[in-house]
Amino acid sequence: MEQMHVLSVLVENHAGVLSRIAGLFSRRMYNIDSLSVGVTENPDVSRMTIVTHADDATLTQIKNQLAKLVNVIQIDELRKDSAVLREHVLVKVSAADKAGVMQICDIFRANIVDISTEIMTAELTGGPSKINAFIDLMDQYEVKDLVRTGLTGLFRG
Amino acid sequence: MEQMHVLSVLVENHAGVLSRIAGLFSRRMYNIDSLSVGVTENPDVSRMTIVTHADDATLTQIKNQLAKLVNVIQIDELRKDSAVLREHVLVKVSAADKAGVMQICDIFRANIVDISTEIMTAELTGGPSKINAFIDLMDQYEVKDLVRTGLTGLFRG
Repeated sequence: MEQMHVLSVLVENHAGVLSRIAGLFSRRMYNIDSLSVGVTENPDVSRMTIVTHADDATLTQIKNQLAKLVNVIQIDELRKDSAVLREHVLVKVSAADKAGVMQICDIFRANIVDISTEIMTAELTGGPSKINAFIDLMDQYEVKDLVRTGLTGLFRG
Repeated sequence: MEQMHVLSVLVENHAGVLSRIAGLFSRRMYNIDSLSVGVTENPDVSRMTIVTHADDATLTQIKNQLAKLVNVIQIDELRKDSAVLREHVLVKVSAADKAGVMQICDIFRANIVDISTEIMTAELTGGPSKINAFIDLMDQYEVKDLVRTGLTGLFRG
């Protein structure tokens, strides 16, 4: 059965490593729901968080193929129960009903980061289900633009 | 002169598009400081935010090359003065000095998202310079692990 999996991959910060990993997923038709890569506390090392839908056999394949790549240092699977998983979204909506938008932002503890006479932009950080619920509610205010980071996370404890 | 540039690229949500874009950067030796890709309000379309260091001539090349790729719908450059630029970081540190960690988190309005007897994990969202300052201060508490999303952003107004 296909399920969502979150892979946290430590890689050497080397030109071409993202391309190699993206190429592996694309050649073998593994899907990527989201991907986020940025530096870590060590400037020579980046951490990539990849969200993919796969059945167990495919997931094992993906992990094995990743492990074979040069520049890949470590692969972990982050699970809901043992990791902090977070996502960040920026949503730009119509400011026609400012009070309505602010009420939803209050409930979700989202921040309004930009406002003009016509437009309001809100930001929210949280787990994927919270982000989804927030976007669903903001939908009624004419979403003009939306950008969602890929999921990132760290093991608990 | 090389400068940091933030490109916001709207792409069709198609297997292989990430690989094509990462391949373009790697073949031509354009660097990628960070990259983040996730779905938008339209499930057929993803938004990729790419941070790169380049001089003006190289930046123009990058934009032109990107525009030639199939599946690339739109390319915008996000600038500090006309866009909301945000980043998200999770930092795991030693919990030996809980009060010290909490004080820094208070000042930065960072959230503590996980705590045990040995470890505290804090999260912060903000512009890159705020994130950098936070990480610098957290550094004194033995950073055990750190994950930073790539920069994301939207045009203001």
